[in-house]
Amino acid sequence: MINDKAYALGTNRSCIRDLFEYGRARAAIVGPENVYDYSLGNPSIPAPDYVNQTIRDVLAEMDSLTVHGYTSSLGDMATRVAIAADLNHRYDAGVRPEDLFISCGAAPALCAVFSALAVPGAEILAIAPYFPEYKPFAESAGAIFKVVPPDVPGFQIDLAAVEAALTPHTQAIILNSPNNPSGVVYTEETLSSLGKLLLKKGEEYGHPIYIVADEPYRELTYGCTAPFIPKIYPHTIVCYSYSKSLSLPGERIGYVYVPQQAADSAALFAAVAGAARAAGHVCAPSLWQKVIARCTHLRPDLQSYDRNRRTLLDALTAMGYEMARPDGAFYLFIKAPGGDAAAFSEKAKERDLLIVPGDSFGCPGYFRICYCVSYEMIRKSLPIFAELIQNA
Amino acid sequence: MINDKAYALGTNRSCIRDLFEYGRARAAIVGPENVYDYSLGNPSIPAPDYVNQTIRDVLAEMDSLTVHGYTSSLGDMATRVAIAADLNHRYDAGVRPEDLFISCGAAPALCAVFSALAVPGAEILAIAPYFPEYKPFAESAGAIFKVVPPDVPGFQIDLAAVEAALTPHTQAIILNSPNNPSGVVYTEETLSSLGKLLLKKGEEYGHPIYIVADEPYRELTYGCTAPFIPKIYPHTIVCYSYSKSLSLPGERIGYVYVPQQAADSAALFAAVAGAARAAGHVCAPSLWQKVIARCTHLRPDLQSYDRNRRTLLDALTAMGYEMARPDGAFYLFIKAPGGDAAAFSEKAKERDLLIVPGDSFGCPGYFRICYCVSYEMIRKSLPIFAELIQNA
Repeated sequence: MINDKAYALGTNRSCIRDLFEYGRARAAIVGPENVYDYSLGNPSIPAPDYVNQTIRDVLAEMDSLTVHGYTSSLGDMATRVAIAADLNHRYDAGVRPEDLFISCGAAPALCAVFSALAVPGAEILAIAPYFPEYKPFAESAGAIFKVVPPDVPGFQIDLAAVEAALTPHTQAIILNSPNNPSGVVYTEETLSSLGKLLLKKGEEYGHPIYIVADEPYRELTYGCTAPFIPKIYPHTIVCYSYSKSLSLPGERIGYVYVPQQAADSAALFAAVAGAARAAGHVCAPSLWQKVIARCTHLRPDLQSYDRNRRTLLDALTAMGYEMARPDGAFYLFIKAPGGDAAAFSEKAKERDLLIVPGDSFGCPGYFRICYCVSYEMIRKSLPIFAELIQNA
Repeated sequence: MINDKAYALGTNRSCIRDLFEYGRARAAIVGPENVYDYSLGNPSIPAPDYVNQTIRDVLAEMDSLTVHGYTSSLGDMATRVAIAADLNHRYDAGVRPEDLFISCGAAPALCAVFSALAVPGAEILAIAPYFPEYKPFAESAGAIFKVVPPDVPGFQIDLAAVEAALTPHTQAIILNSPNNPSGVVYTEETLSSLGKLLLKKGEEYGHPIYIVADEPYRELTYGCTAPFIPKIYPHTIVCYSYSKSLSLPGERIGYVYVPQQAADSAALFAAVAGAARAAGHVCAPSLWQKVIARCTHLRPDLQSYDRNRRTLLDALTAMGYEMARPDGAFYLFIKAPGGDAAAFSEKAKERDLLIVPGDSFGCPGYFRICYCVSYEMIRKSLPIFAELIQNA
């Protein structure tokens, strides 16, 4: 008498999480310095000192009932004002505080948006390679989850493939740029071509097709900027998290932005709030709302990520590995030597090198590494990468 | 092309929240000292100083990556160990750390439990008066929500009414003790009679009927103790929050406890974790997990609540108001003079006295007041209560 799907999701855990737990267990046996764990995107840059100082300031300056009390379920107005001001400063985007819903990170934000869009028969498209949790999120919301094949080897967006996947039931397409797992940043050109296609098909179908922009990596770019998608395509709903930009993944603080110019924006915003309510959202963690209100100007210190990125890119390319152009996030998505990513990953695992096969991202034949790790670990792991490609 | 139910939940906000917002708006006009807002259960006792000191200690002693990083989705083991130890110390309950799932407060915990139990046709019973959000939580999980009529005037549990409501589809009955809105604590006798009935009917139906014990008010009792329900009935799932006991309602930290002795406990625990995952649960706020691990021994300082409680109880009773015996939580549930609680509450609202009609708790003819307010406000509001009953 237990729900099958919930049980399955609780027992068939994500292969990434499994690998991460395996890494912890191995570390206990062989020592953490001998496990080369590239499995999980847990930031290796600490949160800026300013964040912890702001916590202390908030505790010192504000009364406890305000700091820890319920906020409006939509979020503290001061937090919404600060986030809107920062977005407008950066993107001149016309964001109003009332367009922002403060969420417990990006994951429940996505779930609420999918639920808000889950009319009967609704289809949600993802573009391979994609973050695997999109599938349970969309399906649990009651939508049909469909995958657009990858645009190999550049990992931009194959427009013909998108067009082939669109139907009158398509409610949204989820984009993740900078991308997990490919590290690719979708270009302005890619996004505006996609926007044109979606506008055309939306007119044809008589209803808008939304872009859901999952943007936890927005600020993690190297030598380029991730375009702010609502400026390119009006029917864009942004789901954001401070997990990566401020290295606060465990703290669960982010937002949904429903732009005024998006079709049915007021109803959509209400539905997002309603869907969140139905999932037990009361408010985002209150102390963190106060802290974020004072920290929207902070940007990640990307130096160490960039050193890792360049070190791996140069070394692995020299060894003969091929990969997508890693302009953002903290991932490399690499073609598996020999073509079988699962087999290659298993061999790597035997050497305590933990990498994630691309199959779970909808893109077999590739594997993902997260380079948000110590430089020392990278340095020590390179000979294993060399050995693995030689023996492949 | 927007989901109807989500839209409805986002626009028809809870009448409690509406009244609360109204109170804020009125306060801006007539001054906060002239609004007598008894609408919302936002604790008026600040969090113990020890909590804020623990935040500072955690920030000083632990490295930032650990404090703010992802934890296991089930929760930090140190937190689970500390909570289990505290429960075992108090109730000798045999709680194992691995039976605890750390959640973002009680609300998403309840949603996850309902989803885990939502097999096709599943019915979930609540006992009037009940917390109104149970209905959207249960229905969004896919279950049928049914209400057992109240046991007037004592507001214990009418066993004959429960028996009449049970069917072979009943998966669970949700209990909330100390109760919101009645302030009543279910007695050991009530709970053990209910347990016997559920065991008997469970055998008859060939499957267990779970008690879901929603216990944010567990420690808020005056002159009595709330029985720990898993000790009375084995198939009890506890959903707990630190919102009230530590006055941290905005911080979203609590847990689900699935006792080992509950039927199918391992599968049920997995399904709870899976259902939470499908709703975007990644982990409970990480800093708060660290803080709770060091604060499980803290108990609320109930002196000011108790003074409020006794002051209102004595004064209102002397005026002729009748109410349930308020042994717990911070609510009084009062018979509306004249019988029409909505009309009475409207009249009160005209005098800027904000009280919640019992209709939304499934119990017309009564109104709720939250006495987690300032003593000064109570004192100033008493003449209005007197006037209202005289004119009723």
